[in-house]
Amino acid sequence: MENCIFCKIINKEIPCYKIYEDEFVLAFLDINPVVIGHTLIIPKKHFENIFKTEDEYLERIITVSKKISLKMKEVLGIEGINLYQANGSVAGQTVDHFHLHVLPRKEGDNVDFVKWMGKIEQKMEKEQFEEIKNKLSIN
Amino acid sequence: MENCIFCKIINKEIPCYKIYEDEFVLAFLDINPVVIGHTLIIPKKHFENIFKTEDEYLERIITVSKKISLKMKEVLGIEGINLYQANGSVAGQTVDHFHLHVLPRKEGDNVDFVKWMGKIEQKMEKEQFEEIKNKLSIN
Repeated sequence: MENCIFCKIINKEIPCYKIYEDEFVLAFLDINPVVIGHTLIIPKKHFENIFKTEDEYLERIITVSKKISLKMKEVLGIEGINLYQANGSVAGQTVDHFHLHVLPRKEGDNVDFVKWMGKIEQKMEKEQFEEIKNKLSIN
Repeated sequence: MENCIFCKIINKEIPCYKIYEDEFVLAFLDINPVVIGHTLIIPKKHFENIFKTEDEYLERIITVSKKISLKMKEVLGIEGINLYQANGSVAGQTVDHFHLHVLPRKEGDNVDFVKWMGKIEQKMEKEQFEEIKNKLSIN
């Protein structure tokens, strides 16, 4: 897609630190990493977000994230992995081409989703849970 | 697996607010939500983390996350979605059974991964990028 920075990377108009590529996906280092090894996996076809990404691309993205996670464990000596993905500007999406973040994790790296998420936990009553469950149920 | 809270949920020994189930996965509301509608998707077979989860389960989890995201957009009036997933205690994993978080997002909901991630961005030189790229490259 014109003016999409990730499409330009796919088309080699913009360089990247590529770590994996196949017919469906491209994986490369995030240029603004929060940890060393911070990687993005993108579909090679332009889809704005998860709402629009075709299943076969999503499937390849997630299995490649496992492959990369195993590689990170092998070569970076890391102890854990976070996957993170944003859809919509309200969710923090800054490039409108689906991308999955893979974050290799080590003790003391200053990334702590749990501490951060714990701070904003909501108190919900049983009735609220039931209401949302009924709304979201997919048969 | 014995003593796994998510296996107990799968086996109906512990109740949950179920929103989706098929032969591979179960999706239910997180009992400690950070936003209303906060959902977990788990494989119905016990895998500790992404390193160990079989591909067909990962594939179903990601396509179900899309299905649930679309449903959330339809019925919750939300504007975005974050996916989040942790492997290893260092990454914030608290239940040792693979689970993908699906977070419906709205303006002003106090969840802001981007702001939070922006605070810890690393400065990396070209040489460091090259070094990591070479280490992580998968052919």
